[in-house]
Amino acid sequence: MAAVRNAFYAQSGGVTAVINASACGVIEEARRHKSRIGRVYAGRDGIIGALTEDLIDTSRESAAAIAALRYMPGGAFGSCRYKLKSFEQSEAQYRRLIEVFRAHDIGYFFYNGGNDSMDTANKVSEISRRLGYPVACIGVPKTVDNDLVLTDNCPGFGSVAKYVAVSMREAGMDVASMARTSTKIFVLEVMGRHAGWITAACGLAAEAEGEAPHVLLLPEVRFDEARFLARVDAVVKRWGYCAIAVSEGLRDADGAFLSETGLKDAFGHAQLGGVAPLIAQRVKDKLGYKYHWAVADYLQRAARHIASKTDVEQAYAVGREAVRYAVAGKTAVMAAIKRTSQKPYRWRIEPVPLSRVANHEKMMPKRFITRDGFHITQACRDYLSPLIAGHDEPPYRNGLPAYARLRRETVPKKLAESFTI
Amino acid sequence: MAAVRNAFYAQSGGVTAVINASACGVIEEARRHKSRIGRVYAGRDGIIGALTEDLIDTSRESAAAIAALRYMPGGAFGSCRYKLKSFEQSEAQYRRLIEVFRAHDIGYFFYNGGNDSMDTANKVSEISRRLGYPVACIGVPKTVDNDLVLTDNCPGFGSVAKYVAVSMREAGMDVASMARTSTKIFVLEVMGRHAGWITAACGLAAEAEGEAPHVLLLPEVRFDEARFLARVDAVVKRWGYCAIAVSEGLRDADGAFLSETGLKDAFGHAQLGGVAPLIAQRVKDKLGYKYHWAVADYLQRAARHIASKTDVEQAYAVGREAVRYAVAGKTAVMAAIKRTSQKPYRWRIEPVPLSRVANHEKMMPKRFITRDGFHITQACRDYLSPLIAGHDEPPYRNGLPAYARLRRETVPKKLAESFTI
Repeated sequence: MAAVRNAFYAQSGGVTAVINASACGVIEEARRHKSRIGRVYAGRDGIIGALTEDLIDTSRESAAAIAALRYMPGGAFGSCRYKLKSFEQSEAQYRRLIEVFRAHDIGYFFYNGGNDSMDTANKVSEISRRLGYPVACIGVPKTVDNDLVLTDNCPGFGSVAKYVAVSMREAGMDVASMARTSTKIFVLEVMGRHAGWITAACGLAAEAEGEAPHVLLLPEVRFDEARFLARVDAVVKRWGYCAIAVSEGLRDADGAFLSETGLKDAFGHAQLGGVAPLIAQRVKDKLGYKYHWAVADYLQRAARHIASKTDVEQAYAVGREAVRYAVAGKTAVMAAIKRTSQKPYRWRIEPVPLSRVANHEKMMPKRFITRDGFHITQACRDYLSPLIAGHDEPPYRNGLPAYARLRRETVPKKLAESFTI
Repeated sequence: MAAVRNAFYAQSGGVTAVINASACGVIEEARRHKSRIGRVYAGRDGIIGALTEDLIDTSRESAAAIAALRYMPGGAFGSCRYKLKSFEQSEAQYRRLIEVFRAHDIGYFFYNGGNDSMDTANKVSEISRRLGYPVACIGVPKTVDNDLVLTDNCPGFGSVAKYVAVSMREAGMDVASMARTSTKIFVLEVMGRHAGWITAACGLAAEAEGEAPHVLLLPEVRFDEARFLARVDAVVKRWGYCAIAVSEGLRDADGAFLSETGLKDAFGHAQLGGVAPLIAQRVKDKLGYKYHWAVADYLQRAARHIASKTDVEQAYAVGREAVRYAVAGKTAVMAAIKRTSQKPYRWRIEPVPLSRVANHEKMMPKRFITRDGFHITQACRDYLSPLIAGHDEPPYRNGLPAYARLRRETVPKKLAESFTI
């Protein structure tokens, strides 16, 4: 009979409206396997928690508190942007991780993140074997960017998609009703450094001709100012106003980000922001139309109040299945979402090798973008539409969402040495 | 027995998530008074519709379409920023209005707007009498800014308040969970040129010590950079991050808007925007903290999906009562909201003279702002809290809100002369 081992769960990178639903899936499922899994420890602030031996004992949380994670945006145990590189470059980190795992009898590692995290989980699986302390390493996908390969979509994306589509429809109606004497141009900036999935989702709001948004500026399509301005002008002349969704990662003809602030995050990615005012100003300068712009920023990825039911269910399911894979003896796999039927929409979770997920990025396929580059095709709508279906409302108190209150008790340290990150 | 006369309804100024609920109240109630009110004509694009004799015949809309107005953001019949000035300055406009009213047998004028519109409705009442064609002029209040006097609050505000408070809570949890290694400063810019009601509403999200938002920058409190930076630094050192809500109308020590674009709208108001990036950058420059910022812009006032039930009910009620006042022979009054009980929260609608509403602005009282100027008091919470209570969800289709489809049929013109606005 297999021994009872503890599990380690960590959230990584940018958080989402539903990453805690995955935490809920992991912890609730782990509690159903008491003969195999002892306690689930969560890293405080993600993988940094493991490196610094700062572990949260989730077994101290009530069943109600864990169930409430399903409704809570942000990262319940904290997340971080901290990338483990190759074994050669980050050897001390990998060794420390295994040391902490060994000290706390951790036999399962659930890493809830994107691309970089799948790479890390894969390396930890390898290295744990090499160092003689094998750990089952399972990837739990999460990213609003929807850019992981081998999974139909990524938990976190559907809720952002719903938020931006709903917001664009609402703001579009606002602009339409005042365009005759006031604002004619509305620009909504959304997330997406490289892949235009979130911008594409804005396009769902336009179900009939003339409805907002009229123009999408995707990072997959190089920005051509003359063509863009001609399109905007034509839309305003025809419909009285023009609503535009623009990706923060829009690039010019030379491939440079239109709005590069020069800041970089810990993964070395450029920190973007503020392309909406830039686009709006160009329209004003060249066409003279009055504008407004919005930058949704964190509001979009934290918008648990308008989360998609599909998304919440999938986020929970990838967490739950990750635990099942681990107790079934699997390692170095990610719980991926497979679409098994389009109409009616059906899906299931299946394991895919981490090595094939890591370090790839799924861009929008050409067939999802209209020939002119300014909108999405029916194929794209068919893909996106079920991902924003349904509601899964949080409880409310005093008119505001009421979230889980966690104890977040720290596991006593067992190692003599501390580790500086 | 009083004759049957037609009614004219117009939406004015910036639209809201619930202005159409007021339209719904006006039209549904008018349909209950067939012995007094014939058809309700709506101005296409607001008062401009009356001036140009571009009237929409709402009697051509089905009962279901009118009922669906309750759930639709934006201005269903179009709104405009077009201000009628004094009788001397805008004599042609006033005369034309009465001419159109006379041509279409309009005996009731329901003007759904803010400050300026209450002034216009008041003047039309006077002038109609002076020109020998008396019209019952009733104001239906609407403004996200919540700055009308003699009413406890303004329809449109409660829903923005709920949106910004929910968004701030959600984004705050996002930032909190990643602050250790990533963004430490989050700035949300909200509407409010002169009065800080919307910024104050963000403060509702902070129910316990340390919760976001930590700092409110209200237009009622002059911006003192040194004090602000000291507060932000103290908050980051204590709680690990700092969430800030800032009003677009924040002013410096000299009373100048921090973010003046130089543009002015038709009412002569300065067009603002972009104070969030400015505030964030100052924090970065002086304290070195990494930041993110969001500008909600139209998203906040169009966010029907998270509208407050109190707000929707009040928006409907002011429309309904306006019609009752008119058929009861009243004129030159506004349907105001009176709070009759705080706990449990109760309210009723009462008429107040337009002359006493017009051209006043209700700022945040001193007792609603903490002594340090950076947050709201318990008295302010008590005032705001019932205004964001409850949900009133729109119907959904394909994961998106499904709104009323209107015919918007034009009333045949009766006047020979056109009017250029």
